Amino acid sequence: MRSTWGYALQVPGQDLAPWKFDRRDLRPDDVAIAVTHCGLCHSDIHAVDAFHAGDAPLVPGHEFVGTVSEIGHEVTRFAVGDAVAVGNIVDSCGECGSCRAGQENYCARFPTTTYGGTDRHDGTPTRGAYSGEYVAGERFVYHLPESLDPAGTAPLMCAGATVWEPLRRWEVGPGSTVGVVGLGGLGHLAVKFAKALGARVAVFTTSPGKEDAALALGADEVIVSTDATAMAAQNDRFSFILDTASADHDPSPYLRALRMDATLCVLGIPATWSVDPMSLLVGRKSLASAGSAGTPGTQDMLDFCARHGITADVETVPLSQVNEAMQRLRRNDVRYRFVLDVDESERGLVDL
Amino acid sequence: MRSTWGYALQVPGQDLAPWKFDRRDLRPDDVAIAVTHCGLCHSDIHAVDAFHAGDAPLVPGHEFVGTVSEIGHEVTRFAVGDAVAVGNIVDSCGECGSCRAGQENYCARFPTTTYGGTDRHDGTPTRGAYSGEYVAGERFVYHLPESLDPAGTAPLMCAGATVWEPLRRWEVGPGSTVGVVGLGGLGHLAVKFAKALGARVAVFTTSPGKEDAALALGADEVIVSTDATAMAAQNDRFSFILDTASADHDPSPYLRALRMDATLCVLGIPATWSVDPMSLLVGRKSLASAGSAGTPGTQDMLDFCARHGITADVETVPLSQVNEAMQRLRRNDVRYRFVLDVDESERGLVDL
Repeated sequence: MRSTWGYALQVPGQDLAPWKFDRRDLRPDDVAIAVTHCGLCHSDIHAVDAFHAGDAPLVPGHEFVGTVSEIGHEVTRFAVGDAVAVGNIVDSCGECGSCRAGQENYCARFPTTTYGGTDRHDGTPTRGAYSGEYVAGERFVYHLPESLDPAGTAPLMCAGATVWEPLRRWEVGPGSTVGVVGLGGLGHLAVKFAKALGARVAVFTTSPGKEDAALALGADEVIVSTDATAMAAQNDRFSFILDTASADHDPSPYLRALRMDATLCVLGIPATWSVDPMSLLVGRKSLASAGSAGTPGTQDMLDFCARHGITADVETVPLSQVNEAMQRLRRNDVRYRFVLDVDESERGLVDL
Repeated sequence: MRSTWGYALQVPGQDLAPWKFDRRDLRPDDVAIAVTHCGLCHSDIHAVDAFHAGDAPLVPGHEFVGTVSEIGHEVTRFAVGDAVAVGNIVDSCGECGSCRAGQENYCARFPTTTYGGTDRHDGTPTRGAYSGEYVAGERFVYHLPESLDPAGTAPLMCAGATVWEPLRRWEVGPGSTVGVVGLGGLGHLAVKFAKALGARVAVFTTSPGKEDAALALGADEVIVSTDATAMAAQNDRFSFILDTASADHDPSPYLRALRMDATLCVLGIPATWSVDPMSLLVGRKSLASAGSAGTPGTQDMLDFCARHGITADVETVPLSQVNEAMQRLRRNDVRYRFVLDVDESERGLVDL
């Protein structure tokens, strides 16, 4: 086994704290990665909140970049020293229709998540990249484009891929008028992507104060979603709306803002959605959802970002400040994504 | 004014009864139609149930056929004696994006419904085709294909058009595997249409006893939706599902039966839908709705029916038995649509 360290939650309600643990010995197709930067995703907070006494220690982190430190003997796409990136999926069955179609995120046997999952081969819990080293099969490892800042690229691997695939699936491009609901980690990347794809982009936000920030990201306009008059003026305007808001809310006003035959794709996952059927019927509209991305879509997104020089706007903090960063993210006090700097010198903090 | 007669609801809870009333004098673009057959639609029952004391007398009926008895002086597409058909919309603004796109059913200023609406020109209430004569602008009148039985064609004008447009919008054809939920007036036509379009068709029904009937209509298979084992076996099978069931129900099992990127279109209109977000997210699926049809779609549907010899399976009863027919429809005791035979000899029943 390979000894490493990370920040783990061991007792519900406590802070994440340094912890020494083992990674598996490399399988023939495995890549060992010295983690340098890991994004802090809203999912990490959900995982912390869902942690129960008796659960295996939780090491979050599923959008990260680093350097290849060792490779298995069958690895062909990577060499030691390569800059690489990994997202929120590290394995899948590889045999079902979704996997064969390159949509491992919808694997019929459920994909293996980067943390909080169960390894398909040895049954051990997967542990994330709030840690010095990660080990993953090369199929789910990507080359980090040289031109992109590593810290700003880490959030592309989950937040970026998650908004990229719906924008492509619903054919956003020149001539599209796209709405992006929410301007957080996902939303700010959706604005950048949709603009670079050639669309006209409007941001829907509950915060009037975010207007300048949205325009600075490239949005063409900002609509304050709590302003009923402003919302009523949006009816029948949008060819696609991507709803990235994580808080529970009624999708019907956004359905009404769609043009005929258009789709609202909601990325948040409340317990249930209550939808006014008339908001779908009038104009024959669709409500959809999506989650994460497959390997071809993730690679496609990275290539697009490299061509257009797109990274996430991040605030980088040392991994040792992860608890403070989580508290600030709970208050949405970040523009737009925290990235944890995983400095190997912190290894000394851990009792090895 | 033109004196006519029909069956009207005047007092909530009472039966429909013969009533003498006036139609407007013909406008330049109007067609007067001697009604011969009118389908009995579920909407008619909803309208009866929603009738309040003090409402204008309600004459239902919005899917009918008949013979042109007189034309306005600017009418170009019809002559006296022509066999014609009319659906549930008789006017629209004609100027909004939906109208210009031939989707008058989604008119931004709301289409004028065949009954229970308000005429856009004189503000009078529209009254339906449970009556001897109807007057409509020629834009919403269609030629009745000669080869089709008039009684079986009447329900095409609402039930038929309503299922036709979604089947076309979601590109049902050879290679499609289509599910049709419910085997009533709408569902049985959806089965006939989808089969004639070249799809493989499965019927979802709560009634095991409907299997033979579904197969006789052309369905390739029947799935009893209350059988959890049978439903679990449908996961990831369907390229499109059209839900025609009018009763309130959970759409999630049908979402799970869809393939990746596929759509469930629900035609029923409960007060609200509660949807399990995961049933949309896993496989990036869409929930949609639709209502009625535009004039090009309706004409397209009639042409298709003429080519394929498709009409509704109907039970024809005299208009004088409309109350009994409504009671039986409330119990779903009809295969698959009642059509009211509007015999002018019944005019004698009305005190003119």
